Amino acid sequence: MSTDVPDELVAVRRRLHKRPEPAWREFYTTAVLLEELRTRDLDELHYGRDIHADGTRMNIPDDEELELWRSRAIEAGADPETVAELGDGFTGAIAVLKRGEGPTVGLRVDIDGLPILEADEEDHTPTAEGFRSKNEGYMHACGHDAHATIGLGVLDAIADSDFQGTLKVFFQPGEEAIVGGKPMAESGHLDDVDSLLAVHIGLDHPSGEVVAGIEGFLAVTQFRATFHGSPAHAGARPEEGDNAVQAMATAISNLYGIARHADGETRVNAGLVGGGTATNIIPEEAFIEGEVRGETTELMEYMVDRADTVLESAAEMHNCTVDLEELGEAPSAVSDDELISIVSSVAGETAGVSSVIDRDTLGGSEDATYLMQTVQAQGGTAAYVGVGTNHPGGHHTRTFDVVESDIQIAIDVLTGSIQRVAAES
Amino acid sequence: MSTDVPDELVAVRRRLHKRPEPAWREFYTTAVLLEELRTRDLDELHYGRDIHADGTRMNIPDDEELELWRSRAIEAGADPETVAELGDGFTGAIAVLKRGEGPTVGLRVDIDGLPILEADEEDHTPTAEGFRSKNEGYMHACGHDAHATIGLGVLDAIADSDFQGTLKVFFQPGEEAIVGGKPMAESGHLDDVDSLLAVHIGLDHPSGEVVAGIEGFLAVTQFRATFHGSPAHAGARPEEGDNAVQAMATAISNLYGIARHADGETRVNAGLVGGGTATNIIPEEAFIEGEVRGETTELMEYMVDRADTVLESAAEMHNCTVDLEELGEAPSAVSDDELISIVSSVAGETAGVSSVIDRDTLGGSEDATYLMQTVQAQGGTAAYVGVGTNHPGGHHTRTFDVVESDIQIAIDVLTGSIQRVAAES
Amino acid sequence: MSTDVPDELVAVRRRLHKRPEPAWREFYTTAVLLEELRTRDLDELHYGRDIHADGTRMNIPDDEELELWRSRAIEAGADPETVAELGDGFTGAIAVLKRGEGPTVGLRVDIDGLPILEADEEDHTPTAEGFRSKNEGYMHACGHDAHATIGLGVLDAIADSDFQGTLKVFFQPGEEAIVGGKPMAESGHLDDVDSLLAVHIGLDHPSGEVVAGIEGFLAVTQFRATFHGSPAHAGARPEEGDNAVQAMATAISNLYGIARHADGETRVNAGLVGGGTATNIIPEEAFIEGEVRGETTELMEYMVDRADTVLESAAEMHNCTVDLEELGEAPSAVSDDELISIVSSVAGETAGVSSVIDRDTLGGSEDATYLMQTVQAQGGTAAYVGVGTNHPGGHHTRTFDVVESDIQIAIDVLTGSIQRVAAES
Amino acid sequence: MSTDVPDELVAVRRRLHKRPEPAWREFYTTAVLLEELRTRDLDELHYGRDIHADGTRMNIPDDEELELWRSRAIEAGADPETVAELGDGFTGAIAVLKRGEGPTVGLRVDIDGLPILEADEEDHTPTAEGFRSKNEGYMHACGHDAHATIGLGVLDAIADSDFQGTLKVFFQPGEEAIVGGKPMAESGHLDDVDSLLAVHIGLDHPSGEVVAGIEGFLAVTQFRATFHGSPAHAGARPEEGDNAVQAMATAISNLYGIARHADGETRVNAGLVGGGTATNIIPEEAFIEGEVRGETTELMEYMVDRADTVLESAAEMHNCTVDLEELGEAPSAVSDDELISIVSSVAGETAGVSSVIDRDTLGGSEDATYLMQTVQAQGGTAAYVGVGTNHPGGHHTRTFDVVESDIQIAIDVLTGSIQRVAAES
Repeated sequence: MSTDVPDELVAVRRRLHKRPEPAWREFYTTAVLLEELRTRDLDELHYGRDIHADGTRMNIPDDEELELWRSRAIEAGADPETVAELGDGFTGAIAVLKRGEGPTVGLRVDIDGLPILEADEEDHTPTAEGFRSKNEGYMHACGHDAHATIGLGVLDAIADSDFQGTLKVFFQPGEEAIVGGKPMAESGHLDDVDSLLAVHIGLDHPSGEVVAGIEGFLAVTQFRATFHGSPAHAGARPEEGDNAVQAMATAISNLYGIARHADGETRVNAGLVGGGTATNIIPEEAFIEGEVRGETTELMEYMVDRADTVLESAAEMHNCTVDLEELGEAPSAVSDDELISIVSSVAGETAGVSSVIDRDTLGGSEDATYLMQTVQAQGGTAAYVGVGTNHPGGHHTRTFDVVESDIQIAIDVLTGSIQRVAAES
Repeated sequence: MSTDVPDELVAVRRRLHKRPEPAWREFYTTAVLLEELRTRDLDELHYGRDIHADGTRMNIPDDEELELWRSRAIEAGADPETVAELGDGFTGAIAVLKRGEGPTVGLRVDIDGLPILEADEEDHTPTAEGFRSKNEGYMHACGHDAHATIGLGVLDAIADSDFQGTLKVFFQPGEEAIVGGKPMAESGHLDDVDSLLAVHIGLDHPSGEVVAGIEGFLAVTQFRATFHGSPAHAGARPEEGDNAVQAMATAISNLYGIARHADGETRVNAGLVGGGTATNIIPEEAFIEGEVRGETTELMEYMVDRADTVLESAAEMHNCTVDLEELGEAPSAVSDDELISIVSSVAGETAGVSSVIDRDTLGGSEDATYLMQTVQAQGGTAAYVGVGTNHPGGHHTRTFDVVESDIQIAIDVLTGSIQRVAAES
Repeated sequence: MSTDVPDELVAVRRRLHKRPEPAWREFYTTAVLLEELRTRDLDELHYGRDIHADGTRMNIPDDEELELWRSRAIEAGADPETVAELGDGFTGAIAVLKRGEGPTVGLRVDIDGLPILEADEEDHTPTAEGFRSKNEGYMHACGHDAHATIGLGVLDAIADSDFQGTLKVFFQPGEEAIVGGKPMAESGHLDDVDSLLAVHIGLDHPSGEVVAGIEGFLAVTQFRATFHGSPAHAGARPEEGDNAVQAMATAISNLYGIARHADGETRVNAGLVGGGTATNIIPEEAFIEGEVRGETTELMEYMVDRADTVLESAAEMHNCTVDLEELGEAPSAVSDDELISIVSSVAGETAGVSSVIDRDTLGGSEDATYLMQTVQAQGGTAAYVGVGTNHPGGHHTRTFDVVESDIQIAIDVLTGSIQRVAAES
Repeated sequence: MSTDVPDELVAVRRRLHKRPEPAWREFYTTAVLLEELRTRDLDELHYGRDIHADGTRMNIPDDEELELWRSRAIEAGADPETVAELGDGFTGAIAVLKRGEGPTVGLRVDIDGLPILEADEEDHTPTAEGFRSKNEGYMHACGHDAHATIGLGVLDAIADSDFQGTLKVFFQPGEEAIVGGKPMAESGHLDDVDSLLAVHIGLDHPSGEVVAGIEGFLAVTQFRATFHGSPAHAGARPEEGDNAVQAMATAISNLYGIARHADGETRVNAGLVGGGTATNIIPEEAFIEGEVRGETTELMEYMVDRADTVLESAAEMHNCTVDLEELGEAPSAVSDDELISIVSSVAGETAGVSSVIDRDTLGGSEDATYLMQTVQAQGGTAAYVGVGTNHPGGHHTRTFDVVESDIQIAIDVLTGSIQRVAAES
């Protein structure tokens, strides 16, 4: 077994890297993946409306934005028919491989990019080697291009192996905006999955290090609160205004003041705010895009309840109204001991792996947790696997990159683990 | 005509000065006045429950406090039977003198003291001459002892004059707490008053100066907001608390932020606040005693509406409730030109008066406005007269005092004006 | 004397109306005015850097923005050489007409447009008659196109009259942003002005009504506060952030809470605010564009002092820094009795004028006050004249328009007044 | 071995229960303890100024308050000479017993009461059996009367045993106000202590249950912030005030908004606040008594830094000053495994003990941590032992009480542990 990643996979990874697309706009990415998947001998291939539970997609871009990204995708070479089939952002895909009797094992990889301007210095490998982002202002700065590639590689490796059972690979859109997990988790395609693995590359672990079970996902809800008041001339008639910015400011101060919870970590942030039109007009509108998190889903819900109360009362205090919209959501989740034990054992025997850690903490959020919870709720097991890579810049920075050979380590560890799961069931 | 004030009146003024009593606790003061009034040849003398409209008295002290002041009054020499007749603080009196056909003219004087510790230095005349307050911590620091005395003096002077008509002198309690005006204004005793004069001594005008019409009363409402939440251990269970102090703080910040009004001056103050029990307990209760004012009654009502919204929303924001209680209230009012003109003319001819100003602005609040408005609303006229005095300390300070001979100037100006009003009607 | 406005002036007015330009970007407007002025027999014509005192221009657009408007101006037909002479926004012009011995009288008219999208309905005259704004999103919604035209008309009328003295017409840029008055006031061109008239059309007065002296200008300062903090991941490392949005929110709440001032009206508004980058990042930057006003310049300065303290302390409270930048400023001002009396008298005799009001209150701000104060400070007189017009929509709304014949009324009243000033001096 | 507690100890416990005294006022309690200790055969007995490190005592009551409690103590029967020796609140005692060669083992018990009004219902045992608090409004509502008794009981039991070494019992004052630990910890008397045990009764563990190592002490700092501004008449001159209540309110809102820390639990509370004098006066003074906590001392210090910045900036924002005073402080601490193991083992063999738990979490704060840290810093070991009791009401409630026979369990477990520590050293 070698850690050389096949040229075809490197090519796919770089093709994806050149066209990073944000949530619900992964038209090119999905088209490329479907193109690749169609060349493989699969038993089922699902995409479009079918892989998203009705009414669960949040924070969908408007028509203009969707059209923009569809055009970009086609311009970049995506099959126009496929793009049309993806409609208003029903991106992502599910590939199914059946190999005789055995359990159904799932693998979840995410595929979306970030609104970050990629480094253009020559010491940034994608720049030097010509696969820097062509979607200016967007970047695969969290390795999801590698994740999608890993999904393809595992399909290939399992197809070539003696695996007995069914493998389902979930190419999930919209992870960064935490909007893609729920629709896929509730689509029905997970109903027969006995064990689920999810994977992330990097996470500040070096090349050669594998974490069998990443934990400490904070449950998160992202929201947009839009305050509506009434404008008035700030000099001539200040009393006629219902000041949406004053409501917003009071809400911000009090959101951060939500009582800490003794049961565990909580978080709150008013991350993007704005309001008003001109210095001499009492502000008519204002908004807060923010988030709350909790070490458990319950703690997150405690924060949601308190935050809603703050937002509504702050509006009322200034004779305004407020619209509350959920932008994205992810629960907390834990990895199961038995899967961790399998991954840990397989990783220990995998070429290129020099260090195996059983459990480590993420500290952020992830909506793979929706898929993990769905499988666990029906009696199955789940684990979130970390595969280290020497990334030059941190996650979500303009100089992030992955060591491509680590993609093969991930493929090997996951393939071995999937085989072991099937064998031990 | 001379500016020597009769010894008997000086004696009364000093007797009152020695026993300052705050709102609804003027038991001794009322008893002394009734004792004095009963020696005069009056046509009617009203006091007790009869001179206060039902259900209009606000901010009434609790039983213990009332009992304390009744005892003090009796101890100081008040007639126990009279004190008993005043019940739970139905203080004040109305004296009526009828002298043939003619209009009914009212004079309103206030009688209550302030919670201020009087100066005990020898250069403070009441100390030097032995009539410093015996009610330690309370003081006639705004000249209401002089006002009550003026009321008696005018009764005497009118009785001795050729005045044709009816004179009613209103000895009003509870001006400082702005609680005494409304009950008397709505008692029915003003229903036949054609013209009303009110008087105040000092107001930063020197001895010898008279202001025919004081104006610029800010309408005011004083309130108490009590926030009720739930306590919790601040270390072990902060999330279980509903934090009344946090609600209070948000309310304070937003009360001061109520939009200024283009129609005129507004005011707001959270003048006395508090909450909580101990550093390690999430605060269960908090309160704000505050006030809002407006250049007009409408402006004050605008502030009341906005303040109520702030207080209620702030409570709700922190899962608390709030009780809103009105502590006192006074509207705005203006003086009528024709009365101003009479007072101004009379003052110009009065011995001891060296300067007459037609109109000047107060900038504070006064509940004589209730009585003025009542008379004006039934077609009558009203004016608020200022009589200067060289007061050594400012109003509401521990060294305030009046020049006693200025009491006689006030009596003369008011008596002359009342006669003129009757003559010209 | 007739109220028919000459076709040439109507043509100029409509030409200007089609090309509204905001502060420091009045390249086309200035070029058209210079073109017009050059056809007249003037004694002096000043423009460019010479008419703006060094270092007094505030809120200057960046190079890109200036270049954009220069290009637009040239594209619309402005003389490229003239545009080049206006440099980085040294817009506006001063025209001087000398007619023998006599006083120097100034007339100030403003020339800038507003960032408002003009109505495109057919019942909006500029739309129906083809002179709706071509600068989409900008509009002469306050009549400054008429003001500039009035300036030309008065020059013509005075040139044709028996006026003895010097007339200076100040075509001032940047009134709406209150940035144009100070540079012109301090340029030296006002040093010999004995009497100054300023004019505004409309102001909710109907056609045929003239206000000899508009008053009640609130002194104003507009500012931009930019808060700088440090970003951090809101889930993983909230404590590492220095939260600029939290600083901003605290500042907003406390700005509105600046104590009201007993000496007169004050105002404060946080009219345009924003901050942060994404829900999951502790906000690194935030800003407030706001304003404070006062009934007098002193009251405005009280507000500025308090506001600065609030902004700086709010930054410090959250370990942020804040940059304070002044965007615009105008003092308060009063009109002189003698000028009011002249204008009032002239207006009473002017054709088309059916009603003359001596004084009325504006309630907003204006930087003509800078020019008025400069003249008054050197012993001269000033008045701000209102000329009514039946404007279908309010000032600063998308349906604002003027009745063009009222332009002639303004020209007649001002011309007559200027003649009378010279005659009576 | 029996769980019957000797009558003499019950008598002492009840004597102390009748006279609960708060921090630095434990004159009677100390006098009773010294009286008891003097009847025992001790090698050393320390008290007064000697057992408190210079300059480390915080939140000392004023002279009047100290005198009040000294008088009460003497009135209740305390030896006047002893009370005099305790001076200005140098309360508490250290008893030393030397029994041959061996390690020095310390036992820390606290002795102070709480400002809580004790239940007077007959179903409250102290009421029924006549030892309810005579210091009305104060109560031993946290079992420190039992703790002091345990200290005496352990001295007796060790004296009767074959223990080889030195036993030091620290009768510590001022735990509830977290002011007593530091002075004793730094007094030098701990310098030779090799192992330290602290004990607490109850803590929601039932009779018969022992916790070998209580953990999860939150480090805490309690503070008082006093804001000083300037008063002004709220109607006549609001702008002349510097509003201390507005500063306080802004501080409160922002204190609760201090960013959560990813390294562990933090807390903040504005537990007792107040300000202002009257509704119509701009508040001149205000205060916040509050606390911050952290899961570690570092986290607590993070909170202190942020809180100080908030308090100082809030003052500055409203032109006020603020005085910051530390009221009390305690670090975090952990129990050592080897001591836990000894206590656990001994408890398992102790009569009356039905359940032994190795570690449990407190969730509050304790200043025994100062003594524990001091011993650990010099290479020694420490553990905080919990001894269950069926307390009818919760800690710090008016119906709290202990089962007296559990005092003997505590004595037995501690005595056995101390012997074992000496034997195993």
